[in-house]
Amino acid sequence: DTLTQGQYDTVYNFLSLVIASQLFTAVFLVIAMPRILPRYRQAITVAIVVCGIAAYHYFRIFDSFKEAFVSDAAGGAGVYTQAVGASFNEGYRYVDWLLTVPLLLLELIAILALARKVQTSLLLRLLPAAALMIILGYPGEMSDDNMVRGIFGLLSTIPFLYILFVLFTQLTKSLASQPASVRRTLSQLRFLILLSWGVYPIAFLLPILNIEGSDAWVAMQVGYSVADILAKAVYALIIFYVARMKSYDDD
Amino acid sequence: DTLTQGQYDTVYNFLSLVIASQLFTAVFLVIAMPRILPRYRQAITVAIVVCGIAAYHYFRIFDSFKEAFVSDAAGGAGVYTQAVGASFNEGYRYVDWLLTVPLLLLELIAILALARKVQTSLLLRLLPAAALMIILGYPGEMSDDNMVRGIFGLLSTIPFLYILFVLFTQLTKSLASQPASVRRTLSQLRFLILLSWGVYPIAFLLPILNIEGSDAWVAMQVGYSVADILAKAVYALIIFYVARMKSYDDD
Ligand SMILES: CC1=C(/C=C/C(C)=C/C=C/C(C)=C/C=O)C(C)(C)CCC1
Ligand SMILES: CC1=C(/C=C/C(C)=C/C=C/C(C)=C/C=O)C(C)(C)CCC1
Repeated sequence: DTLTQGQYDTVYNFLSLVIASQLFTAVFLVIAMPRILPRYRQAITVAIVVCGIAAYHYFRIFDSFKEAFVSDAAGGAGVYTQAVGASFNEGYRYVDWLLTVPLLLLELIAILALARKVQTSLLLRLLPAAALMIILGYPGEMSDDNMVRGIFGLLSTIPFLYILFVLFTQLTKSLASQPASVRRTLSQLRFLILLSWGVYPIAFLLPILNIEGSDAWVAMQVGYSVADILAKAVYALIIFYVARMKSYDDD
Repeated sequence: DTLTQGQYDTVYNFLSLVIASQLFTAVFLVIAMPRILPRYRQAITVAIVVCGIAAYHYFRIFDSFKEAFVSDAAGGAGVYTQAVGASFNEGYRYVDWLLTVPLLLLELIAILALARKVQTSLLLRLLPAAALMIILGYPGEMSDDNMVRGIFGLLSTIPFLYILFVLFTQLTKSLASQPASVRRTLSQLRFLILLSWGVYPIAFLLPILNIEGSDAWVAMQVGYSVADILAKAVYALIIFYVARMKSYDDD
């Protein structure tokens, strides 16, 4: 596949935007953590680790992209073709998600500060489903065959729907026990999750639709990038806000 | 030997997964350490160092892998062959283990917080055996001769079994003196050790069995990688959990 310079620049700058968003969300949280009561620091610590992992992987994705597409025109103008002996490694995203998706769920459950038994039961249901969802998506993503992509995408959708179901039924139930000051925010957070997580399967599907090759690929990269900013960095900042409100309330 | 693109991607992404797991487990522990009582910080400090050493070696292993296998097809598609003048250095793993295996045992003994005399006696038995196990395995791993591989593998198994024997008899005995809140976790930790440490000799054996060349090698890399995540990162997180529970109890 080849990319026009416009396509190349678009992907390049979106990847760069993700690096900056994740890295400095993590930095912000490290600096701001002392303002949170110790009992809510577990959630913030997990958020820092998630954004850190994402920043790390986006550095790698960025380098992989720069190596994989090359132009032989002066000033990098013209068309970018695939380099000899280097491929863009989409696998980094799955390695990232395998670690961060379970952690994002953990982050949410930590901030809710539910009874220990409810916590354990939620984690035992959500974490394995999250890992399964990512592991099943991987062979589909790495395959050049749209048939294989479709089948594994479908399989991966089963744990995906299960996670959304558990989140919406169980968390909706737990909203009642949350302090009034954060109930509304937590309720909206469910929709941020739905909105951002929903982008992934759609972006995954793009290469299957019969859009002109590179356009689909570029749209997929942009989709994954925007979703990663919403699902990790924006999400972390909302969790931080909830942690601060709860810290005031308890004080 | 040659690798298909699928095999290359598999090893590549597993190595990358190990880097991220070890690095961010270390980061997590650094951030979370203040929540642990000082008397249990020794174990966490050792865990941070272990995960840090592992992350460092996996960066090196990853680079060594990328240098050792090359493709001359556009987009890195097609077959990867061994590069001219560069070999994959399996030795990094042994350098890593020589340092981390004794430290892992130290980590365990630190978290148990046994009487000083019992501690010293355990360390004097376990640490030299651990070093011996790794040193004896090294010549087997570096040799192309399956005979040599087998002999040193067998010699290395003697201290391996001794370590497992000491761990299971002595630690089982010490469980009785542990606080009730962590007894179950510590008991399960023995099985995590058995399970994860048991992968190494099996992965080591794979090249001897007469599986088609590269498949055995790929399976060995994946085996070592998964075992390293379990034996260091997951292990560290369990030790952290025990340290937190003990900190609550003592508080
Ligand atoms: C359903 C589905 C998928 C879902 C992926 C999701 C939901 C990923 C979420 C990632 C997050 C939240 C990352 C982090 O911050 C895949 C694997 C694309 C494969 C196709 C089917
Ligand atoms: C018995 C045996 C081995 C055992 C290796 C082990 C048990 C390694 C453990 C490593 C750990 C725990 C690393 C760290 O995290 C070797 C050397 C492969 C050689 C073959 C025989």
